[in-house]
Amino acid sequence: MNDNSTTVADLKRLMASFVAEREWQKFHDPKNLAASIAIETAELMEHFQWLRSDELEAAKHEAATMQAIGEEVADIACYLLSFANTMGIDLASAIEEKVKKNEIKYPVERYRGRSR
Amino acid sequence: MNDNSTTVADLKRLMASFVAEREWQKFHDPKNLAASIAIETAELMEHFQWLRSDELEAAKHEAATMQAIGEEVADIACYLLSFANTMGIDLASAIEEKVKKNEIKYPVERYRGRSR
Amino acid sequence: MNDNSTTVADLKRLMASFVAEREWQKFHDPKNLAASIAIETAELMEHFQWLRSDELEAAKHEAATMQAIGEEVADIACYLLSFANTMGIDLASAIEEKVKKNEIKYPVERYRGRSR
Amino acid sequence: MNDNSTTVADLKRLMASFVAEREWQKFHDPKNLAASIAIETAELMEHFQWLRSDELEAAKHEAATMQAIGEEVADIACYLLSFANTMGIDLASAIEEKVKKNEIKYPVERYRGRSR
Repeated sequence: MNDNSTTVADLKRLMASFVAEREWQKFHDPKNLAASIAIETAELMEHFQWLRSDELEAAKHEAATMQAIGEEVADIACYLLSFANTMGIDLASAIEEKVKKNEIKYPVERYRGRSR
Repeated sequence: MNDNSTTVADLKRLMASFVAEREWQKFHDPKNLAASIAIETAELMEHFQWLRSDELEAAKHEAATMQAIGEEVADIACYLLSFANTMGIDLASAIEEKVKKNEIKYPVERYRGRSR
Repeated sequence: MNDNSTTVADLKRLMASFVAEREWQKFHDPKNLAASIAIETAELMEHFQWLRSDELEAAKHEAATMQAIGEEVADIACYLLSFANTMGIDLASAIEEKVKKNEIKYPVERYRGRSR
Repeated sequence: MNDNSTTVADLKRLMASFVAEREWQKFHDPKNLAASIAIETAELMEHFQWLRSDELEAAKHEAATMQAIGEEVADIACYLLSFANTMGIDLASAIEEKVKKNEIKYPVERYRGRSR
């Protein structure tokens, strides 16, 4: 699988199978899944916990760090996909809609290079 | 856009354009993005903050709640996509690899219906 | 030390010494400390990740779980105390002020037994 | 109330009264409280979301920001105190014990000025 040839639906099916095979639907309720995304995100944050902004580039060049970071990112994505499965959310359309909303909220002329 | 016809790469490009048009790459470093995923996840958690496990089903049938939840999910996904862009991570292959690892870590026979 | 005889200032001094002895003030900036509170809170959440509301009582009677939970709570408190030290916040007065505000925001008659 | 003259037990009693008056004990189970600490911590993180390490000092000199930050810190502390109440945890002794453990884990000679 790779990002160019994999649809969001492919990934949702992968997660749905993993969960169904273990009969884990009862654990994957929206409250538990939101908490699980938070737990995995904290593990991702740990990699940058004490680094200053100017020390962040280095991580990209450390193979072991990048492998660990890739796994945390996958954990977050897996729970997010399961959340979308459980709640019947179409991620691509939710993302497209939100980006359109943000394009209006953050007009380019006013926000170029500025966060507020 | 919908999950059946949208690839992960399509979504990554959408986010990359949004960020580049605003020259926000300098804000979207991995430490800030991990924190941003955590911040948006907390907003998702708020919808279930005081609900008992047996009260969670109701949310699915409230249109306004589902709209708000869909937006929080999109926010999390957007920052996750931007994180993958910044760090050069192929999400589909990271997810596939992690699911394979978890299939070994959590064998069906031992974990059917059990979280530990 | 115990809660009856220990002031918040005592705990702040304990943390300030620990940090100063290691010359860790440079790491303990408000952004890193807020993230650190989040990271430790996620470790606390992990203990309840897959439990239903009606399964939570059991934890109180498991000595090993309670020891682990006590340590996570201490980690959160340590970073919160260090945050207050770094930012010059008087915790007791901030808490008293916030509780007064919440007493007005959540009047007893309207919120008795109700979260909203 | 101020940190010099307020014990942890004083603050725990303040929170216990606030919760009991509203009959909110049923909401304040350990899972909900851990999630609530995470939610409030995310609101604290938002104040530093896009700031570089070298931009953090400024916040201390903005009265409105410091007021808002003080309130987020109080929210985190309130839920942490309620968690300790619910689970019967003596915070001062848990903190003292954890700091002693960390003094052994992070010996001064090896960790002076270093996070790892």
